[in-house]
Amino acid sequence: MSEKNRKWVLVSRPTGLPSRQNFELREEPVPPIGENQFLVRNLYLSCDPAQRTWMARDTYIPAIPLGDVMRSGAAGEVVASHHPGFRQGDLVSGLFGWQDYAVSDGGGFMPVTKLPPGVPIAMCLSVLGITGLTAYFGMLDVGGVKGGDEVLVSGAAGATGSVAAQIAKLRGARVVGVAGGADKCRWLTQEIGLDAALDYRSEPLPRRIAELFPRGINLFFDNVGGEILDAALAHLAVGARVALCGAISSYNDSEGPRGPRNYTNLIVYRARMQGFLVSDFAARFGEAVTDLARWVAEKKLRDQVDLVDGLEHAPDALRRLFTGENRGKQLVRIAEPAGRPA
Amino acid sequence: MSEKNRKWVLVSRPTGLPSRQNFELREEPVPPIGENQFLVRNLYLSCDPAQRTWMARDTYIPAIPLGDVMRSGAAGEVVASHHPGFRQGDLVSGLFGWQDYAVSDGGGFMPVTKLPPGVPIAMCLSVLGITGLTAYFGMLDVGGVKGGDEVLVSGAAGATGSVAAQIAKLRGARVVGVAGGADKCRWLTQEIGLDAALDYRSEPLPRRIAELFPRGINLFFDNVGGEILDAALAHLAVGARVALCGAISSYNDSEGPRGPRNYTNLIVYRARMQGFLVSDFAARFGEAVTDLARWVAEKKLRDQVDLVDGLEHAPDALRRLFTGENRGKQLVRIAEPAGRPA
Repeated sequence: MSEKNRKWVLVSRPTGLPSRQNFELREEPVPPIGENQFLVRNLYLSCDPAQRTWMARDTYIPAIPLGDVMRSGAAGEVVASHHPGFRQGDLVSGLFGWQDYAVSDGGGFMPVTKLPPGVPIAMCLSVLGITGLTAYFGMLDVGGVKGGDEVLVSGAAGATGSVAAQIAKLRGARVVGVAGGADKCRWLTQEIGLDAALDYRSEPLPRRIAELFPRGINLFFDNVGGEILDAALAHLAVGARVALCGAISSYNDSEGPRGPRNYTNLIVYRARMQGFLVSDFAARFGEAVTDLARWVAEKKLRDQVDLVDGLEHAPDALRRLFTGENRGKQLVRIAEPAGRPA
Repeated sequence: MSEKNRKWVLVSRPTGLPSRQNFELREEPVPPIGENQFLVRNLYLSCDPAQRTWMARDTYIPAIPLGDVMRSGAAGEVVASHHPGFRQGDLVSGLFGWQDYAVSDGGGFMPVTKLPPGVPIAMCLSVLGITGLTAYFGMLDVGGVKGGDEVLVSGAAGATGSVAAQIAKLRGARVVGVAGGADKCRWLTQEIGLDAALDYRSEPLPRRIAELFPRGINLFFDNVGGEILDAALAHLAVGARVALCGAISSYNDSEGPRGPRNYTNLIVYRARMQGFLVSDFAARFGEAVTDLARWVAEKKLRDQVDLVDGLEHAPDALRRLFTGENRGKQLVRIAEPAGRPA
């Protein structure tokens, strides 16, 4: 075990894309643990669009204070414990931050959970992690997807979108994914089996959506906002649902999002637009992980992970989410645990 | 019976406020009726914000063709009938248009219905008519109001808003109404018993909403859109509902509505925004009219009607909705029926 803890500290709020300049990499001694605490050695960090929001301002959770370690989901190994619920060798996930070692009491906004056994760590942070769970509850509970639905998913090559789109297919919907670039679009149709893909970088969104949904969209799972949301609102079917998961197109815009001008189509089509946070479904995470893991084992659900190696590259890995470089779940790998499938 | 039918014909699409220039008043012989048709002599015309939309473009119903009579809800008396379901003397409501006489077969987008007995005609077009029904289903079904809710209603001195706000009070909610001008605000608190009123013409919306809803808004019934919608979205409570009834602030804007910039707060507050059309609830109009009429009889629900006399003034009456001159339901009175309470 290293004697030092490297940690990325937030030193300024971002304007535009988050950058290395917003952080400082510091070294300090590995912190001691007190009563009812345990020490986690981080193995993988999760990169999520919400982190850009946490860097900037208070929302459903307070902004990260300047001078604090960058907040981030992570998976790690318990290396020391004074907590009755966690012991040395346990593999766990939680908001451990961008650092080698974290002290935890198991609680917090996202309580610490033990990883399901026999599954690669990366999968625990992707399809079985927060992004997979977000897709699960967003598509099934908020979106209420059912057989025969005509479904549009934005950010469909991303960690949440790709799982959401596949769950909709599993439930018998016709699914169109929106992504940036021909490669991602090919992946959506040829690898994960969507019915069609729409490249927002090269295709005219409103016209293509009209062509792909002649009977209108029954369910739009939106990770992106902006033009895509307006184009979708222009082509809803009566009784449509819009599951609002995120608005990544606006996260780096200091003006905030422009509003969807076509929102009054919610009246015309008697449609509902509903936002959600996966944390509200925490009591049902177990059931969701069971379903997701079974679908993966049955090869009905494809996990896609994009790895960057080394804690020192965490800021660059986060940035990839916003430049569209990532394919599937973006992770930072710090180390692999002994005796676990990679 | 007059030998002539006066009718207001739509001759141009509006830019900005609808005006007399968009119409021509023509005279023609009273039209004959065919098999399964009946002739209605109009008594009252209903003025509704949606008429501005119908003048301009296709929505949930095609735009009014240029050269056609102006589309409008109305109440009238059957004066001749070759239809088995309607006979001379029946009092009915339907989309009879801005004219003295209409020929109907009883069907169409808003099927013709008989007026409840013993009630003034004006009330049949206001609290017991489309606007009252819109308030009823919007507040109870779409909004799901319940005791203890903190409710905001925009356009609260209007025909729909004033009924919606009173229904929320009836169900035990705390209700704040938004209206334009001190007189209307006084009416909201002193006459119809709302807990507070907010004058959007003289008070800073975001700050006042923050003060009036320290725990956030549970339910926002929106008739207005624009700044009010954004201010409300900034102060939602977790799990809030936004019942989207209309967006009158934008109906005269040729650019269409600007979108609500704060829509991503639907995610932060896990809130839903749902549009609706009263026509979808047609099968339950009977039950709603029974409830509304009982509440009026029990003095729990106050009907407010704003009358303009004379078919020749119909364009001016419609315009009053958009200048905010009307208080409650705007109607045009053409004639009173014999033997009916006024």
